[in-house]
Amino acid sequence: MNERDFIALLRPLAGPAALNLDDDAAILTPPPGQDLIVSKDTMVEGVHFPKGRIGGGFSERLLRTALSDLAAKGARPIGYMLSVAWPIGRDPKWLNGFVRGLHDAQESFDCPLIGGDTTSTDGPLVASVTVFGLVPNGEMVRRSGAKPGDDVWFTGTLGLAEIGLAIVSGHAVDLSPSKRLVAEEAYLRPEPRFAFRKVLRRFATAAADISDGLLSEAGHIATASGVQIDLIAETTKNADFGDDYELLFTASARNREEIVEGAKAIGLPLTLCGHVLEGVGVTVEGTVVKPEGYRHRF
Amino acid sequence: MNERDFIALLRPLAGPAALNLDDDAAILTPPPGQDLIVSKDTMVEGVHFPKGRIGGGFSERLLRTALSDLAAKGARPIGYMLSVAWPIGRDPKWLNGFVRGLHDAQESFDCPLIGGDTTSTDGPLVASVTVFGLVPNGEMVRRSGAKPGDDVWFTGTLGLAEIGLAIVSGHAVDLSPSKRLVAEEAYLRPEPRFAFRKVLRRFATAAADISDGLLSEAGHIATASGVQIDLIAETTKNADFGDDYELLFTASARNREEIVEGAKAIGLPLTLCGHVLEGVGVTVEGTVVKPEGYRHRF
Repeated sequence: MNERDFIALLRPLAGPAALNLDDDAAILTPPPGQDLIVSKDTMVEGVHFPKGRIGGGFSERLLRTALSDLAAKGARPIGYMLSVAWPIGRDPKWLNGFVRGLHDAQESFDCPLIGGDTTSTDGPLVASVTVFGLVPNGEMVRRSGAKPGDDVWFTGTLGLAEIGLAIVSGHAVDLSPSKRLVAEEAYLRPEPRFAFRKVLRRFATAAADISDGLLSEAGHIATASGVQIDLIAETTKNADFGDDYELLFTASARNREEIVEGAKAIGLPLTLCGHVLEGVGVTVEGTVVKPEGYRHRF
Repeated sequence: MNERDFIALLRPLAGPAALNLDDDAAILTPPPGQDLIVSKDTMVEGVHFPKGRIGGGFSERLLRTALSDLAAKGARPIGYMLSVAWPIGRDPKWLNGFVRGLHDAQESFDCPLIGGDTTSTDGPLVASVTVFGLVPNGEMVRRSGAKPGDDVWFTGTLGLAEIGLAIVSGHAVDLSPSKRLVAEEAYLRPEPRFAFRKVLRRFATAAADISDGLLSEAGHIATASGVQIDLIAETTKNADFGDDYELLFTASARNREEIVEGAKAIGLPLTLCGHVLEGVGVTVEGTVVKPEGYRHRF
């Protein structure tokens, strides 16, 4: 197995902008009236994903979590670039799984491969994707627009991915088979909330995906927006592990009804979890908290 | 040292599109009349760069070699995104060197950081950059446009980086101090040939940067263009190690004089190294060769 064989395996994933993966670069000019949005995410075997389960699970989760950043910005995906540092001597059938995981994720979101590079490593598998999306000019939802008086919302159910990771890692979890499956899916195949992007673009003043836990992401929005976010205690239970990739967003209280309607129309659960105040930092019903979300140490 | 400290060190490198590194995404809409060109490159400690010399050398070379892909497409750089998997326990002073190397490279090419992510790893340092550039609409130079009858050219001097790597790796090299310095610079600070981009856009029918050796890159252009490339034996000496990041390009023989003038105007050495024929593959004065350029094995 060498670099050329690797690229041959990836070629069926390539979209038109990839120039058949025969070039060093891709052309990504957005159509008139659209902004190009770019985000980058990396996964390291043994750090972000259990060792020994690489194949499809690793790559499908990687692409889905990267796409989640685009969903949080109100964008629709148009393609991704991939860098892989592949462990020397790894069983080639794992590579087939890796390619299948990418295939499954990109088919779900109509988001082809448009380039990248492959190298070898004597360390763990490291893969990085750069995802590209489009929004109408000037409509990207930032982290920095939350205003005092806004509501704070999150989508979906938080805490499922934590259970899913425990299951995937082989720990005993006391759940019915159907609930196990739901939790495992939440961890292995997090759902970028693209279906909600029009509501988000229309009403959200700020948004982020919840990768590092609810308190941590609320802190990011509070800092970027120069506001205080006060959360409702009830809604923060089991919500600071992260890894769920649901959306956290702020919006004016006068749009509450339209937001609820918009979520209902696509069957997306929605929780009103707090309010934006004048001030700094994150509080839970007035008590200052220090986010305990995941942070890499070096 | 944690992720937030790492990002604080990187913040001075950030350009306006980075939104102060406070967001998950960047907006990269090219101005009207321009195409956005994207390329991705990864470096692994111990594979692409000698272990024990990480700091500035690693990151400066990484960014310069990634930018070289843009230069080969006739683009000018506008920014880059960075993913770093940083080894746990690595001396923090190495991180300062890493940031300084990025700073030096981006200052040279007016190419700010616009986003990315940092993670930890228990393996070697892996860093990946996605570089962004602009060309006038439709003017990106591809690998696929070489035509029978074209000349084949390369810029600069090939083989220097091979000697530079030997020096950097601590091997004995019998050279004068000034020649040692030139070779070391060629390896540590390869020069993306942006100064040549207008000549390239005007006259080149196909181009690539020489990362994997002359024969190997000629093979890529021959394959993508559906032609045969016949090289002049004299010009292929010591030229198949790669790592020089000079440009290989094809152009109609009737533009020979203007191309030579364009290179002379910026003091860039230029070598007419072959011709494009009807056929397939790479030959050296008629003899079929198999490119021996660097290829990762897994």
